Amino acid sequence: MAISEFEIIERYFSALDLQDEQMHIVLGIGDDGAVLDTPTGYQQCISTDLLLESIHFPAAADPFLLGQRALAVNLSDLAAMGAEPLCFTLGIALPGYDEHWLTAFSKGLSNIAQQYHCPLVGGDTTRGSLTISIQVHGLVKSGQALRRDGANVGDHLLVTGSLGKGALALAALGVPVHFDHSLHEQLATLGSSENEKLQQYFYSPQPRLGFARQAAPLINAALDISDGLAGDLQHILDRSRVGARVYMEKLPLDSLFADYVERQQRQSAALYGGDDYELCLTVAAENLPDVHAIAEQHSLALTDIGEIEAEPGLRLVDAAGNQQDGAALSFDHFKAGQDS
Amino acid sequence: MAISEFEIIERYFSALDLQDEQMHIVLGIGDDGAVLDTPTGYQQCISTDLLLESIHFPAAADPFLLGQRALAVNLSDLAAMGAEPLCFTLGIALPGYDEHWLTAFSKGLSNIAQQYHCPLVGGDTTRGSLTISIQVHGLVKSGQALRRDGANVGDHLLVTGSLGKGALALAALGVPVHFDHSLHEQLATLGSSENEKLQQYFYSPQPRLGFARQAAPLINAALDISDGLAGDLQHILDRSRVGARVYMEKLPLDSLFADYVERQQRQSAALYGGDDYELCLTVAAENLPDVHAIAEQHSLALTDIGEIEAEPGLRLVDAAGNQQDGAALSFDHFKAGQDS
Repeated sequence: MAISEFEIIERYFSALDLQDEQMHIVLGIGDDGAVLDTPTGYQQCISTDLLLESIHFPAAADPFLLGQRALAVNLSDLAAMGAEPLCFTLGIALPGYDEHWLTAFSKGLSNIAQQYHCPLVGGDTTRGSLTISIQVHGLVKSGQALRRDGANVGDHLLVTGSLGKGALALAALGVPVHFDHSLHEQLATLGSSENEKLQQYFYSPQPRLGFARQAAPLINAALDISDGLAGDLQHILDRSRVGARVYMEKLPLDSLFADYVERQQRQSAALYGGDDYELCLTVAAENLPDVHAIAEQHSLALTDIGEIEAEPGLRLVDAAGNQQDGAALSFDHFKAGQDS
Repeated sequence: MAISEFEIIERYFSALDLQDEQMHIVLGIGDDGAVLDTPTGYQQCISTDLLLESIHFPAAADPFLLGQRALAVNLSDLAAMGAEPLCFTLGIALPGYDEHWLTAFSKGLSNIAQQYHCPLVGGDTTRGSLTISIQVHGLVKSGQALRRDGANVGDHLLVTGSLGKGALALAALGVPVHFDHSLHEQLATLGSSENEKLQQYFYSPQPRLGFARQAAPLINAALDISDGLAGDLQHILDRSRVGARVYMEKLPLDSLFADYVERQQRQSAALYGGDDYELCLTVAAENLPDVHAIAEQHSLALTDIGEIEAEPGLRLVDAAGNQQDGAALSFDHFKAGQDS
């Protein structure tokens, strides 16, 4: 059945439920571009992601879950900026016209778009191997965006939620992970109830938008953990020209995998695995109680895992007090291909 | 040689020449997102494009030219909105690390970024088959964006530059075109001086930004011609709930191909071919002289090709006065695959 790209946009992406009421959207889908208002006293935050089949998600991934995930991981970047979602654009290449796939994918997107009040305002649809390019737009009060370059010596280092779950879920779903090739076999024995949780971990990351927006004035630096804590934290350290000490026994490792995967491997997943979409924050000591109180209001786990120091570099400290250098193995699409 | 995606961004995309001075960019490359100011009295226009190798550009395309084209075609969308460029983001998937390719591609991008004062503010780099996702941001005075839904009965229909050149150039470069499979053989005999022109046509579209911005208050509706005049004009007609009459002998066909390709085929290229990146405008009769004067100031050809009528549909009128229905054959990535 022949269908035009305009019909695809009309039928699957102009649906009202993606066009949530947003007073700042002057012109949405259907013109050469969208037109956005920025309210006085606010700035716009933007972030973009390019997702390819078999690299960022398994081939034949469930389209509903994929739609959810594609938008949620981008919203996590807005959370890391302390921004409120405004809208998003979607560039998508499809191998062909598949009504079931498009319906489900659009529902997944719509689900997250509605939940976070972030409607679709435009995009580009073409034929090609499955590729999803999303750009999210958010609003922050002028001068109050959370940045990577604001960490100060003495700040506490905190992470939201639990770590390692994204990479372990990906391994269990059959996608190669670069830091431990033995994981696939271990995870093949996971029960079906755990498998459901895995799907949720990988496909339904929870962007910490509400917490981040409320806590933003109390946070010195923040980023979203997408490539493993060690590598991502290094960006805060580089841009803030500081170092850090992380206590490995304090890392909030997800408990789901405890019966299947050794602690050492779960720790590697947290440090070097990626796909967790939690936030890493630095907070001055005097603001700690308030930041913890806000996390509690949002029923969000928030764990103090270390501190910012003047000496450059990332020091990982084990339970016995031994230190190791943390600058290694963080997930990288370009290095991954060559090192494995 | 292993290189990280962060090193690729640092080395090829953080270059100062892409970070042109732009007072409205609060935070550029290197954080979870970029932060943009919108000056009082302005709105933001955004437009996004997803370009895949072998579909939107030839495999093994010259990376410098490709960089130029990728940004220029997006800027053409800003021109169609009457907007002034603000910045762009780049999502790119690369099959591997190729220093020569990246250097040349980044130079091509930078060339256009500098020319139109549109710096890079962020993006995403990953491994995969060559994919380029660009989103441009522009500024328009509040309420003054050019839209597709403003055409009025009695408006004159105008196009900038010449038409058909994009599709004929693509055919000559060896990429299949959907509307006439015999073109490849005819164009294989093109001389080398013409070939140079072809490269320019395909890889260096000229976004009509200056003209569009200046003429915007005098224009009722506008769009950028990327999929062939017939199909693109239909979007103006649909959204404005009007029809149009186009005089085919008035179409500004490019003269380069006159010795190689029959007029009928050049006309088909203009109507159904795509890749011209010229503007199609509707203008009230009383504003015509001023719009022509502005085009002259910009040394831009501007041709009156027809008029907007109340009766829905697109009527193509030949030199003998015969009419045919124009709603056919416009380029479409989804239909193309099935119809050819």
